[in-house]
Amino acid sequence: MLFSNLKINNNEPIYIQIKNHIVDMISKGLIPDKSKLPSTRELSSLIKVSRNSVILAYEELKSEGYIYSISGKGTFANSKKDISKSNWYIDWNIIENNYSKTANSMDIIKNEISCTPDLISFKSISPDGELFNMDELKKSFLNRISLEGHKLLNYGYAQGYRPLIDYLFEYMNKKGVDTSNKDILITNGFTDGLDILLSSFTSPGDYVLCENPTHNTTIKIMKALNLNLIPVTIDKNGLDFNMLKKQLIQYKGKIKFAYITPSYHNPTGTVMSPESRYKFYNLMKDNNIAIIEDGFNEELLYSSSHIFPITSLDNLNNGVVYIGSFSKILFPGMRIGWILADKKVISKLESVKRCKTIHVSFLDQGILFDYLSNGGFDRYVKKIRKFYRDKFNFAYECVRKYIPNEYILGDGGLHLFLKLKNINSRKLLNKCYEKGVIFMPGDIFFIDNNGDNTLRLGFSRLSFENIENGIKIIGNCVKELSKDDI
Amino acid sequence: MLFSNLKINNNEPIYIQIKNHIVDMISKGLIPDKSKLPSTRELSSLIKVSRNSVILAYEELKSEGYIYSISGKGTFANSKKDISKSNWYIDWNIIENNYSKTANSMDIIKNEISCTPDLISFKSISPDGELFNMDELKKSFLNRISLEGHKLLNYGYAQGYRPLIDYLFEYMNKKGVDTSNKDILITNGFTDGLDILLSSFTSPGDYVLCENPTHNTTIKIMKALNLNLIPVTIDKNGLDFNMLKKQLIQYKGKIKFAYITPSYHNPTGTVMSPESRYKFYNLMKDNNIAIIEDGFNEELLYSSSHIFPITSLDNLNNGVVYIGSFSKILFPGMRIGWILADKKVISKLESVKRCKTIHVSFLDQGILFDYLSNGGFDRYVKKIRKFYRDKFNFAYECVRKYIPNEYILGDGGLHLFLKLKNINSRKLLNKCYEKGVIFMPGDIFFIDNNGDNTLRLGFSRLSFENIENGIKIIGNCVKELSKDDI
Repeated sequence: MLFSNLKINNNEPIYIQIKNHIVDMISKGLIPDKSKLPSTRELSSLIKVSRNSVILAYEELKSEGYIYSISGKGTFANSKKDISKSNWYIDWNIIENNYSKTANSMDIIKNEISCTPDLISFKSISPDGELFNMDELKKSFLNRISLEGHKLLNYGYAQGYRPLIDYLFEYMNKKGVDTSNKDILITNGFTDGLDILLSSFTSPGDYVLCENPTHNTTIKIMKALNLNLIPVTIDKNGLDFNMLKKQLIQYKGKIKFAYITPSYHNPTGTVMSPESRYKFYNLMKDNNIAIIEDGFNEELLYSSSHIFPITSLDNLNNGVVYIGSFSKILFPGMRIGWILADKKVISKLESVKRCKTIHVSFLDQGILFDYLSNGGFDRYVKKIRKFYRDKFNFAYECVRKYIPNEYILGDGGLHLFLKLKNINSRKLLNKCYEKGVIFMPGDIFFIDNNGDNTLRLGFSRLSFENIENGIKIIGNCVKELSKDDI
Repeated sequence: MLFSNLKINNNEPIYIQIKNHIVDMISKGLIPDKSKLPSTRELSSLIKVSRNSVILAYEELKSEGYIYSISGKGTFANSKKDISKSNWYIDWNIIENNYSKTANSMDIIKNEISCTPDLISFKSISPDGELFNMDELKKSFLNRISLEGHKLLNYGYAQGYRPLIDYLFEYMNKKGVDTSNKDILITNGFTDGLDILLSSFTSPGDYVLCENPTHNTTIKIMKALNLNLIPVTIDKNGLDFNMLKKQLIQYKGKIKFAYITPSYHNPTGTVMSPESRYKFYNLMKDNNIAIIEDGFNEELLYSSSHIFPITSLDNLNNGVVYIGSFSKILFPGMRIGWILADKKVISKLESVKRCKTIHVSFLDQGILFDYLSNGGFDRYVKKIRKFYRDKFNFAYECVRKYIPNEYILGDGGLHLFLKLKNINSRKLLNKCYEKGVIFMPGDIFFIDNNGDNTLRLGFSRLSFENIENGIKIIGNCVKELSKDDI
């Protein structure tokens, strides 16, 4: 008998002993595949244990796939060993396509030194969470939930949460944007917005004009989609319009998009002047190249007054796609951004959004809308402007004092950009890392393998003390490397 | 003098009058482009108004792009009329690629009759939000926020919120899955999971085996990515293994993936038997075709005990990618799902997730984790099983009674699938629509333009009364159409 050698002991729960016994017999082939097992009633009387123990054992066996039930017919064995003995190994490296390969090889989280608590890290440009007003956030959550109830937790619309869209229309109007022929799509932050736009309107091999250096996430997305990036230098003299004009001639008729970050450009931290915004818009218009404007941290202007975004020059034209995000400075963990573009463009992108992720969390959209419309964001921006301005000025002074450099860039924002005098920033990084300091080497922001002697210093989450200590260490390492060279 | 004909009246705020006057002069060319404006101090004394009014006017003009400041130099005019006069029109239809075209043409929200409150709609299979326990949700939010604070609102990790990942490991273990060589990636629901997987491991022209009919979102994503779908019929007899074997021979060595929904298959509502799961796994293994298992609504089993997912047969192999989601029955508005697959696969997909949207909202992941780990989901599932089972049984009875049919499919879940006798379901839909009832025509679920006389009836959000009334109306329309044919 199959169960005669099952001796129940007192060391283990009974159902476990029954289960293990059956697993053992199935794997030894003593209970053949698809053969019928005794019913729970039969087995309990057979081995003299409570029926509950047998039921429990059978439940576990079922959930682990050793047995299965057919209603009205009984319980049957599944000899898993057939499967586990003969191995099946798929080489996913071979199946992986170029999109994934690029996304992996350009993933800075995987490929750069990661931050640990013992390091002074200038890598990050994410906001200091201590500045988030959690009480206001809680209020917004409770308020929105009491107003909308479970609606925020069920399926919503791909375009986004209507009150948030309306708020953003007004918000863009205040920036001087004529939105009468425009519409808005809510996205999972800037990254999603750019991905949706490019995967809808580009094909492999297309040409895109970019500032050089530019946002590394943008470079990654574009390269993963197999686009050709045409660089236009941006440095201490701002955007190089002569180079831009040359590129326009060389690639005449070929360029589909121009990607530009006019405010707090990442990584240089520079703000494009109103005149240059004008000039740029007109040049793109004359060459029929659609503009992708990255509204990156536009709100962070410390000193002078608001500068109009390029999309405000577009009026009733349809040449600019503006991608905005609060997430860079407010609640990045929520991942909420938006695209403002021609109505027909947004209608297309809405279906693409639905195809990719259905929609952005309605709960988050509801909370964010409540927070924004109660003036939470305005209060927050007022607070952080002063906070980050002080840090910016302090960091700037420290760099000027301690790090020998060719130039320092940054008109505000959460980071500075440095060009060193013939010092390789990767060599510098290795040296600094030994001394407990890391930063973002500048080369990752360059399209054309340049930027070897540049670096980006993010200071948003560092104390004044650590900013000074860290920059001193970087400065000392630069000096040491300069000596090595002589 | 430029400002001499500005007469301040009492009808409007002074700054508005100043602003309008300047806009007028710029647009008439009286203030030429780039010419310098008087300082706020100068102008206020010139036109004898408070300096604050001038400052306000200038602020608005700046934000609307009519003027700009260069620090240390002054304020200058921007004659926008240059731009607005010469139009720029991009034909985005020409730029749009096939991905976007497919996502748009297959967007059922755009192309099917939309639901309005006066209709009895059997279209939706989303859960009834009235069943969500909002108090537990609130508690989870407040609890998680008090434990994690602002961390949940700052940047997180692409792979997901660690406690949620660990919870899901245990959850999958309970389903009998050996996860020792597996890892988990959190996604924005099932849709995002499938999109990430396919965009990383397929190339245009690849072959994917699919049940026919199958989930329309899946068909859309695959067609948008330009994949070839190889159909295997699923009907009242379950999956057609003879057809499957024929397809395996015909496309030998060509098929990269097989997509399957073993539980509550959408749209047929059928649950695959343990034996068939076995058979299917072994066939795919023998043909080296990676399986994409859609864990759709697996939790909803009303009657019999849990059936192991196919991925539980994979043990230490790496042939199955399981995509799970609570979002189909719990809080769809949050958009949270997960991929369970080989560690190396997940590592690749993690970078792809970072490239597409950085990560899923950490706030939502935190709330969901809290809710799950406090047993909220178990309590919820217990409650809804009874609720939906009663509706299912009632709807089934109504269909049997009122709608002449060839067969009714559905082993539970939130919908039924019907095959009619020679009645075109689109004709039927039009007739029913006139009488205030809509449903999902079955053809959208078919890969091969079949399913003309099938339909899906979702009943989750309808009252018993509306279920009966709606089904009666459909039945009457079917009878009328049958008469028309005679």
